Amino acid sequence: MNTITDFYPEAVIVDAGSFPQSKIPLGWLDKCDLIVCCDGAANRYLATGRKAWRIVGDCDSLSPEIREKYGDIVRRFPDQETNDQTKAVRYLKSKGITRIAIVGATGLREDHTLGNISLLIDYLKQGIEARAYTDYGVFIPVYGDSKFRCEVGTQMSIFNFGAIDLHAEGLRYPIRDFDNWWQGTLNEVTSPLVTIHAKGNYLVFINYSS
Amino acid sequence: MNTITDFYPEAVIVDAGSFPQSKIPLGWLDKCDLIVCCDGAANRYLATGRKAWRIVGDCDSLSPEIREKYGDIVRRFPDQETNDQTKAVRYLKSKGITRIAIVGATGLREDHTLGNISLLIDYLKQGIEARAYTDYGVFIPVYGDSKFRCEVGTQMSIFNFGAIDLHAEGLRYPIRDFDNWWQGTLNEVTSPLVTIHAKGNYLVFINYSS
Repeated sequence: MNTITDFYPEAVIVDAGSFPQSKIPLGWLDKCDLIVCCDGAANRYLATGRKAWRIVGDCDSLSPEIREKYGDIVRRFPDQETNDQTKAVRYLKSKGITRIAIVGATGLREDHTLGNISLLIDYLKQGIEARAYTDYGVFIPVYGDSKFRCEVGTQMSIFNFGAIDLHAEGLRYPIRDFDNWWQGTLNEVTSPLVTIHAKGNYLVFINYSS
Repeated sequence: MNTITDFYPEAVIVDAGSFPQSKIPLGWLDKCDLIVCCDGAANRYLATGRKAWRIVGDCDSLSPEIREKYGDIVRRFPDQETNDQTKAVRYLKSKGITRIAIVGATGLREDHTLGNISLLIDYLKQGIEARAYTDYGVFIPVYGDSKFRCEVGTQMSIFNFGAIDLHAEGLRYPIRDFDNWWQGTLNEVTSPLVTIHAKGNYLVFINYSS
């Protein structure tokens, strides 16, 4: 049984989707020292006056000024088989860092959004707990049973990645072995403690309380 | 074998995600007479000076002014089991309309985005061909084999919804029976005619040529 609350990342990855605008993802950028920008995301991130620890990726989208000024923190991985988010995750893992918040994973091209979100499941299989904090909520990859402490009324969605025997306590609508994404969306927390039972992997999206 | 080109919708649904900003989704709003707004999407849509044919949904997000002024075109379905996009699709089907473009399906909350996109597969199973035109590309639900005419170099992604024996001609990277969303992303068209073979359902995302 996992109790998944009070997650505190060791590092934050700034992805090249929409730059975060809401309080929670921006908060990680202010609270965390190890900020890793994915390639071109550095242009926008550094323009906010914040500091980066590393800039990782194939680095073909970096502006010439950034490339020159920040050359010492650039780690270039030209491999075309993986995306920049995964390169950043792998770089962190090589440094022993496996608890990661990702911001800017969504927005802009939807194919990138879908790719970035679903990769959280693969990272989890490799022993890396990476969560994607968007402007609206957080995506949390899970294997097996899990517990969440949430305010009653919070909207929660569950996306199945091959898990079976899915059921839960503390949600308004019953969950099951969903075979389409929409089936697990827009559930609602009815108890301060939500317990999800499952064999296998799934992704939980928790909408920030408004 | 389906040849999926030259799709011309009979009606356009304006969903309550980000209001479209790019030429292709806005083009459908200008070219099509039967525009159906999902609930609160009407507030923003009508403010652009365009005309709506119907406003469909539970209608709890309509501004009082719109509700009063456009009462004759509002079709209220209070059922909480389906979302407003599906209510609009069902309304159109009840009028015999089954070839539909959806705009504004993505953006804002990612749980809504994932729900809206994946529902295209369910609509297809009900004999409705609905495509979601975003600011970046188009999502096309498919059953079985398909052909696409595209410019060489176009980026294409394939999301598997339980199909087997997936393979293709005219794409840079081989496709297979993907079991995670990211695996089919960011492929590239290498021939003016792409042929996808499959048994079952999948979703194709074609990035607009820039």
